[in-house]
Amino acid sequence: MAELITVEDPDDPRLHDYTGLTDVELRRRREPAEGLFIAEGEKVVRRALDSGYRMRSMLLTPKWADVMRDVVEAAEAPVYVVSPAVAEQVTGYHVHRGALASMCRKPLPAAGEVLRTARRVAVMESVNDHTNIGAVFRSAAALGMDAVLLSPDCADPLYRRSVKVSMGAVFAVPYARLDPWFDGLAAVRAAGFTLLALTPGEQATPLDEAAPHRMERVALMLGAEGTGLSAKAMDASDLRVRIPMAHGVDSLNVGAAAAVAFYAVATGRPGS
Amino acid sequence: MAELITVEDPDDPRLHDYTGLTDVELRRRREPAEGLFIAEGEKVVRRALDSGYRMRSMLLTPKWADVMRDVVEAAEAPVYVVSPAVAEQVTGYHVHRGALASMCRKPLPAAGEVLRTARRVAVMESVNDHTNIGAVFRSAAALGMDAVLLSPDCADPLYRRSVKVSMGAVFAVPYARLDPWFDGLAAVRAAGFTLLALTPGEQATPLDEAAPHRMERVALMLGAEGTGLSAKAMDASDLRVRIPMAHGVDSLNVGAAAAVAFYAVATGRPGS
Repeated sequence: MAELITVEDPDDPRLHDYTGLTDVELRRRREPAEGLFIAEGEKVVRRALDSGYRMRSMLLTPKWADVMRDVVEAAEAPVYVVSPAVAEQVTGYHVHRGALASMCRKPLPAAGEVLRTARRVAVMESVNDHTNIGAVFRSAAALGMDAVLLSPDCADPLYRRSVKVSMGAVFAVPYARLDPWFDGLAAVRAAGFTLLALTPGEQATPLDEAAPHRMERVALMLGAEGTGLSAKAMDASDLRVRIPMAHGVDSLNVGAAAAVAFYAVATGRPGS
Repeated sequence: MAELITVEDPDDPRLHDYTGLTDVELRRRREPAEGLFIAEGEKVVRRALDSGYRMRSMLLTPKWADVMRDVVEAAEAPVYVVSPAVAEQVTGYHVHRGALASMCRKPLPAAGEVLRTARRVAVMESVNDHTNIGAVFRSAAALGMDAVLLSPDCADPLYRRSVKVSMGAVFAVPYARLDPWFDGLAAVRAAGFTLLALTPGEQATPLDEAAPHRMERVALMLGAEGTGLSAKAMDASDLRVRIPMAHGVDSLNVGAAAAVAFYAVATGRPGS
């Protein structure tokens, strides 16, 4: 069991994992380099632990040290207790849910490993917004996608904001980087997947006509909000599919489009 | 054609429609009372006009006066041109897309009127977050819902943030307040609608089994993020439906859940 270590100096080097959390550019470089990520809020911290991530340390305000007593008792890493004011000085923001954990990253699996057992895979190209990455992971997990593949320029699913928006779903769905991009897409096809490119383009096949839930193995490709999939990614697909639009609306936001497509791919799957 | 009127004094009373835009509480009271709403950004302003809303005035920075020359020329209301600095002093924030229009509200139709011709209706209970209201309207419009009904305590779809997040979809889908709540739900049923209550509850019928797209008239009821539908609203429904969840995830966010449910309700509708 971990003892609670009260820290009063915001410059205490033991709190280094938590410094400058509002500096996105800095954290994007630091966290992968230092092999850590930050889980924020009780629920997310618990889910990270349940998913087998190892804790480096925890930073709690007194209230949360009390609420999370069982986590503290089970912790094999140091647990620092700080006042809300010190938490704000260290992190750079007012930590509403006064529970942060610094967790160890695990090595990412290779794409081939992820594909071996999966039947429904989401493939994201150039989705570099942390909120969108998190939202897509939450829907992918909830709606039964087996895995997520990311182009090398997609944002980090373990960045604090992604983890939070996903409600911890980034821990539940296996994911890998698809590198090299675009050639990796051929490997997905070689693994037995039909590559569907989601686009609002009018010449694409309506999703319900494509009936992806009847396909044996499906890789559903999604692009970023606004730009969508690149022409090269579209060319590398087997079929372009669209969600039919009404009322003259030209598109859904990427989170809504992903949710609808995952539902169409996963629901009514053979044997369920 | 409107002439451009250059204004240099942020306290000029002609700019009163645009003051204090960041004060949500103030604007929530003022806008309905004064019969106006604010459309922000070129695309949204154009959509409001295309949907038949009458303009009270427009506030543009010089760059946008140029880009929107055709709108300015067609305008029958005064068009004020201000520097970006004055725009910020008046509104309280840095107006990235330097185009704001103050538009006249129209009287809301009665629920009965909206229901007369509709076949697929979304019913929202206590959704009081402007971003969520906007997101749900965008998906409702895109996915072919015919109308939206709101409990009296739902947020205003014409609040600036709702309009923006909806990308103007709040102009495309007819909506009405369902008052009194909950008794209004009986009127929806009397109009021939099957009332489906969307819930994550495990005892509910999976959405694909319920096959709402085969129903003649469907009212899909949605609650707020977190709390969901009230027990009384659930009791007033004909059937509770759920989106099946995987990977131990307990829920989708309200925008994603709405999009999936609208797709399930609207796709494969008889005759299409």
